[in-house]
Amino acid sequence: MESKKPAEEPLERPSIKEIKNEGTAYTLPSKDESQRPVIVPPTKPKIRYSLLKTGICYDVRMRYHAKIFTSYFEYIDPHPEDPRRIYRVYKILAENGLIQDPTLSGADSIGDLMVKVPVREAEEEEILQVHSRQHLDFISQTEQLERESLLKETEGGDSVYFNNDSYLSAKLSCGGAIEACKAVVEGRVKNSIAVVRPPGHHAEPEIAGGFCLFSNVAVAAANMLKSYPESVRKIMIVDWDIHHGNGTQKAFYDDDRVLYVSLHRYQLGKYYPGTIHGNYDQTGEGKGEGFNCNITWPTGGVGDAEYMWAFEQVIMPMGREFEPDLVLISSGFDAADGDTIGQCHVTPACYGHMTHMLLSLAKGNLCVVLEGGYNLDSIAKSALGVCKVLVGEPPDELPAPKKQPTPEAKKMIETVIRTQSKYWSCFKNRHGNDGINFKDAITSTLDTRNFPLQNAIREYQVSQLSSQFNFVQLPILDLNLPANTMLCTSGIQDSETLVVIVHDTPEIWSERDTQTGIIDPSSSIIVDNALKMINWAMDRRYGIIDINIPQTLFEHANYPGVASSQEILIYLWDNYLKFFQNLQKVAFIGIGDAYGGIVHLLGHRDTRSVVKCAISFLDKKPLKVMVPLIDETLGDWYFKNSLVFTSSTHSCWGSTANENKKLRKKYGRVLKADCDGMTNIFDERFEEATDFILDSFEEWSESE
Amino acid sequence: MESKKPAEEPLERPSIKEIKNEGTAYTLPSKDESQRPVIVPPTKPKIRYSLLKTGICYDVRMRYHAKIFTSYFEYIDPHPEDPRRIYRVYKILAENGLIQDPTLSGADSIGDLMVKVPVREAEEEEILQVHSRQHLDFISQTEQLERESLLKETEGGDSVYFNNDSYLSAKLSCGGAIEACKAVVEGRVKNSIAVVRPPGHHAEPEIAGGFCLFSNVAVAAANMLKSYPESVRKIMIVDWDIHHGNGTQKAFYDDDRVLYVSLHRYQLGKYYPGTIHGNYDQTGEGKGEGFNCNITWPTGGVGDAEYMWAFEQVIMPMGREFEPDLVLISSGFDAADGDTIGQCHVTPACYGHMTHMLLSLAKGNLCVVLEGGYNLDSIAKSALGVCKVLVGEPPDELPAPKKQPTPEAKKMIETVIRTQSKYWSCFKNRHGNDGINFKDAITSTLDTRNFPLQNAIREYQVSQLSSQFNFVQLPILDLNLPANTMLCTSGIQDSETLVVIVHDTPEIWSERDTQTGIIDPSSSIIVDNALKMINWAMDRRYGIIDINIPQTLFEHANYPGVASSQEILIYLWDNYLKFFQNLQKVAFIGIGDAYGGIVHLLGHRDTRSVVKCAISFLDKKPLKVMVPLIDETLGDWYFKNSLVFTSSTHSCWGSTANENKKLRKKYGRVLKADCDGMTNIFDERFEEATDFILDSFEEWSESE
Repeated sequence: MESKKPAEEPLERPSIKEIKNEGTAYTLPSKDESQRPVIVPPTKPKIRYSLLKTGICYDVRMRYHAKIFTSYFEYIDPHPEDPRRIYRVYKILAENGLIQDPTLSGADSIGDLMVKVPVREAEEEEILQVHSRQHLDFISQTEQLERESLLKETEGGDSVYFNNDSYLSAKLSCGGAIEACKAVVEGRVKNSIAVVRPPGHHAEPEIAGGFCLFSNVAVAAANMLKSYPESVRKIMIVDWDIHHGNGTQKAFYDDDRVLYVSLHRYQLGKYYPGTIHGNYDQTGEGKGEGFNCNITWPTGGVGDAEYMWAFEQVIMPMGREFEPDLVLISSGFDAADGDTIGQCHVTPACYGHMTHMLLSLAKGNLCVVLEGGYNLDSIAKSALGVCKVLVGEPPDELPAPKKQPTPEAKKMIETVIRTQSKYWSCFKNRHGNDGINFKDAITSTLDTRNFPLQNAIREYQVSQLSSQFNFVQLPILDLNLPANTMLCTSGIQDSETLVVIVHDTPEIWSERDTQTGIIDPSSSIIVDNALKMINWAMDRRYGIIDINIPQTLFEHANYPGVASSQEILIYLWDNYLKFFQNLQKVAFIGIGDAYGGIVHLLGHRDTRSVVKCAISFLDKKPLKVMVPLIDETLGDWYFKNSLVFTSSTHSCWGSTANENKKLRKKYGRVLKADCDGMTNIFDERFEEATDFILDSFEEWSESE
Repeated sequence: MESKKPAEEPLERPSIKEIKNEGTAYTLPSKDESQRPVIVPPTKPKIRYSLLKTGICYDVRMRYHAKIFTSYFEYIDPHPEDPRRIYRVYKILAENGLIQDPTLSGADSIGDLMVKVPVREAEEEEILQVHSRQHLDFISQTEQLERESLLKETEGGDSVYFNNDSYLSAKLSCGGAIEACKAVVEGRVKNSIAVVRPPGHHAEPEIAGGFCLFSNVAVAAANMLKSYPESVRKIMIVDWDIHHGNGTQKAFYDDDRVLYVSLHRYQLGKYYPGTIHGNYDQTGEGKGEGFNCNITWPTGGVGDAEYMWAFEQVIMPMGREFEPDLVLISSGFDAADGDTIGQCHVTPACYGHMTHMLLSLAKGNLCVVLEGGYNLDSIAKSALGVCKVLVGEPPDELPAPKKQPTPEAKKMIETVIRTQSKYWSCFKNRHGNDGINFKDAITSTLDTRNFPLQNAIREYQVSQLSSQFNFVQLPILDLNLPANTMLCTSGIQDSETLVVIVHDTPEIWSERDTQTGIIDPSSSIIVDNALKMINWAMDRRYGIIDINIPQTLFEHANYPGVASSQEILIYLWDNYLKFFQNLQKVAFIGIGDAYGGIVHLLGHRDTRSVVKCAISFLDKKPLKVMVPLIDETLGDWYFKNSLVFTSSTHSCWGSTANENKKLRKKYGRVLKADCDGMTNIFDERFEEATDFILDSFEEWSESE
C-alpha cells in the first residue's frame, strides 16, 4: 500500500483494447449494464472435477471367499477377515445417502453422488505384472481343491485361508482395484473407492500372506503405469493400514515410478508382518532408492494427533515434491478406533482429513482401495468418513480432546524425516547436519579436530570443584578410566559421614540452529544439578565423593573413558569405602542413568552397616530393579531407605487411566514429581531429599 | 493380523438381528441378491455440503468509487485500488465457466456451480457493531461533498480517496461481505466469495486508511456473532493480504470469539501500515489474549514455500484447536506473483492449496472476502485459483521449482510458534525449554549450577594444547579477561615466523531433544577447526598464537570474560608483536566473527613490515570493512594479501540473479566456497589457504 509515494515500479498499463472493453479506472460504467456488448460468450466450464461423481467398486461375489467353518468356536468368534466387511461399508454409504441402493445388491444406478464402477475379474496378464506365474497357478488351483486340501493349504500358509471361491473373489478384488483406478485415470469419475476383499498389501509377488492373495493395489498401479504411459507416469501409494504392506513395498522396491509410503506399527519388527523390511530405514534400492518411506509407530495406541502430524510433516510435503499423476490409498481401517487388532485410535473424522489432504495432490486423482480393518462398525464409519470427503463434503472436525502426538511418535517422525532428507529436498536442512555422517564424525579417531563434549564438561567440573572446594582425584588403579572419573574432598579416608554422588554428564541447555544442527555456544549453559547437592553437603562438612559417568557415545561401547556405573560403584566399595575405618554414615545420590550403579551395589554387597539411604533423581530415565543377592531382606531395606524421584510423565506411570498405579517394591520408593525435567524436579524435591538424608543420618537433633 | 494366535480381546460378536440381516460370515449370500428383503429404505443424502453451490457477491455499483482524476499522470498511471479489480475477478470466473454471465453485468442466474448472493448496502446498525458513529458520519457526508472538499479529504487521509459514490460503494462492499457470510451460515450456499471493493482490513473502528473505508470482514464477523449466537460462536479470520490488517486486529483484539491470523510483510514495522501492532508479539489482550497471531515476513520475496509452511506448521494446527464455526479469509491478492506493491510470489495454485486446507476447518463454512491486490492479472488468476477450489475442484499442482522456505521465514515461523505456544497446546513442547526463561537462567549469577558452555570448551582447548603442543598462556595484564584467552607456543618472543589464529568458540555438533530443548552430551562433539591449522603450523615449526574470543552471551556485554577481538588484537600488537625482535613473517588466520579484530588491527596499525597475509573463514558470518586509517594504500594491500572464505549461501552473494556479483575491494578478496558450513569450507579450502600463506612467506623454494 505505501500509498503516498508512487509504487517503485510502474503499474501495468491497460492496452487500448482493455480500456475499450473494461472502461478505464476513471470512466464510470454505464448504470444500465445490460446495454453493454456481450464480451464473454457462454462458456463451458473449464473444470471437470466437481462435475463428476465418485466411483465405487462393490460386488457381492467378493463375499464368497470365506474361511471354511471347522468348529463351533469359529462360528461364534469368526475369522477377522470376515465377508461382512465389504457389506458393512456398502451399507453405511446407503444409510447415509451417498448411494441409493435399497436392496444393497450392488445396483447399477446408485444416485447423484456416486456411480457404480463395475467389478470384473482381473486378467491373468494383469496379475502377472506383479505376481509370478507360479503364485497365480497356486491360487487358481484352489478352485478345484477338495475340502481337506483347502484346509491343509490354509493350515500351511502364512495367515491365509482358502475355499473354492477364493480365486474368484481374489480376481474380483484385484479387478475392482484396477477398474476403480481406470475410471479415475480415464476421467469417468472424479475419484473412486474400491470396496474389495480379500485385501492385498501383504501378498508378495511370489507368495500369499496376511489374509491377502493378490496384491490388489500393486497390480492396479503396475497396470496403470503400463496402460497409460502418457498420463500416469508416477503413482504415490499411501498405505494407512496398521500393518506394513510388505507386498506392495516389494513390488516397487526398485521402481522410481511408484512412491510407497506406509504408516504402521512396527515394534522393533515384532508386529505383523514382523520383518525388518517394514523399518523406517528401508528406503528402496537401485532406481527405487528414496521412493519407499516407512513411518513406523513404536507401539500401538496412536491416533489422530500422530496421523495428522505424519501427514503434515512428512507425507504432504513429500507428495507435493513427488508430483504423482495418481494417488492410491491402501486403505486398511485397522488403525481405527475400536479395532482390537490394531489397538489404535484414528477417528472417522481423521480419515476424512487425511483423504482431504491427499485430494490436494495429483489434481484430485485419488483411488481408495480397502485393505484390512476388522471391527465391522469401525471400518464402516471410517469408510464413511473417507467417502464423504471423496464426494465433496468437508471433513468433520477432529473430536476433542485434541492431543499432542506422543513424544515417541514425534521422535519417530523426526527420524523418518532425517532418513528421507537424503532424497527429498523438502526435508533438507530440516534437521541439521544433513551432510555429515554424525556417527562417523564422532567416533572417528582420524580427525583430530573432534572432541566429545562430555570430556570438556568433565574437565570443567574438575577445575571448578578443585578450585572452589579443593576436591582431589580419587585414584582408580585397575580400571581403564579417565583419572578424573572420581573426585573427593580431601581427607576422605577419615570421614565419618559421606555423601557419594553418582551422576551422568550434566544437562546442557542450548539454542540450536534448526538449519544446520549446530548449537550456539554463546547461548548454551551447563546445568550441573550435582553442584546443588555438593554445596549442601559442603555446608554440613560431610565428606563428598563425586563420580562422573559419561553416557556411551552412540552405543560405541569401546569408546575410551566409558564404563558402567555398576563397575565403578563396586570398585569404590571394594577398594575404598569398606576400608574406611571411621565411616559411619553414607548417603548415595544418583542423578540420571548413573543411578543404576547404586542399585547394583546395594544388591551385590552388604553395605547396610554404613549406607543409610539412597536418593535418586531420574527424570524420565528408566527405573532399575534391585536384585537382592545378599539376602532376602535387602529388598525391604532398599524400599524403606530409598527415594527415587521421577518426572510426572515418566513412562512408569502409564497412561492417565492408572494414575495411582503402585509400583512394585523392588524399584525402591518411586515418587512422582509434579513437574518434568531434571532441573525442575531437583528444585521441587531438593528439600524433601535432604530432609530424608538428615533423617536417615539421625541428625535432626543437631540441625533443628 | 497376528493371525495364528487368537486376538487378545474377543472380536465383536454379531447380534441375532445382525446375523439375520447380514448373513453370517459363514453363510454365503444368495447369489440372487435381488430377492433379499429391502433393508435400507431410499435415503435422502445425510450430507448437505456438496449438493450446494458456491455463493458469489458482486455488484457493478462498487466500481463507482474511484479516485477523482486530477492529472493526466493519474490517467496513465492509475491509482492501484482500481475499480477494474472486481471486474477482472468476475470476468475470469466467467471465462472459465465458473459463472455463466455473458454480459458480465452481475446476472441473477449464473449456472450450476455458483449462485449469486445479492449485494445490499450494509445497515448503519451493522456498521456500528465495529465502527464509531463519528467514523460512519464522516464517511457518509462524503456523498454530499463538492469536488474540492473531496480532494481535500483525500489529501488529508491516510491513503484513502473519496468521490460522491464512495459511501455507497463502501456500504455495498461491507454489505456484500455480510451477505456472503450469511448465505454460508444459513446453509444456502456451501461457501462463498465476496468480490467487493473498497477493501476493508485497514479501516480501524475510528478511522479509514489504506484504501479502506469500512472494515468489511470485521463488520461481517461481528454481525454473524450477533445474529447467530447459537451457530456462530467462534470465527477464525485468516488475512493473507500482504499488509497487516490493523483494522480487523483492532476490532477483535480483546475478543476471544475471533481468532485473527495475519500473514504479512513487516520489515521491522517499516512496511505499510508500519506500526508495531503488526508484530508477531502482538497476541491480543484481556479476554482476547492468545487470539491474535501475526506471521511477519521480514522482507518481501516470499512465495509458495513460505505460505505452505506457515499453513502446515501454524495456521492449520491452530485452526483445528480453535474449532471455529466459520472461517473468513481476508483475501488480498497482493502477495501474488506479479504484484509490484507486494513483491512476493504466491502462485494461483498456492492460493488454491491454502483455500483447500481452510475448507477442512469449520465443516467447510468458509467465506472469502476480497481485500487488496493491485496487479489486475494477478488478482484475477489468484481469485480463480481460490474459486475453483471453492466449487469443488482440487487445487492445481504447485509449480516447480519447489523451494524450501527461506531460512529467515523458517526462523520467523519458529518464533511465531514459540510466541503462540503459551496459548495453544498444539505448539506446546514444540520448541523446548518452554517453561524456562532461558535468558534469565543463563545470566543469573544466583544459581551456582549454571556455567557457560564456552568456558568449559576453552578450558578443554587449553588442556589439549598444553598437553599436546606445550602451549602456554600469553599473559594479558591490563585487560579484564580470562587468563586463557591467549595461548602460544613456548619461546614465542624469538619466533621468526608466526601464525596468529583468532577464533570464535568452536562449533558443537549435537543431537537435541526437540521436546525439551536439552542437548544430549553423549552425542555432542566439539569441532575445533583451528586445530587443523595449528597442526599444520606445528608441522612447519612456526610460532603459533591461539586467541579465543567467546561470543557474547545474549548481548549481555558485561558478562565477565567477553571482550572484543578488536581490543585483543590491538593489545597483542602493541604489547607483543611489535617488540618481537626476530619477527619477520606473520600470517593471521581468522575463524568466524573473531576475524573482525584482524581487519581492525590491519587498518589501525601499520603492520606491513611483518604481516604477510590474513586469511579468514567466515562461513555465513558478516563481512567486515577494512578502514585504512594509516594510509590510503592499505586498502589495496589488504585486498592483495587477504583471502576471505565465505559460504556459498553467504548473504553477500545476494540472490541467484547476481551470482557473479563483485564485492568491493574494501572487504578484501572475498571468495565463495562451493559449500556451506564452517567445517566443509575448511576442508574445501584448507589447501588453498595454506598455499597462500606459503606464497606470502615466499617459502615455496623450501617446500617444493
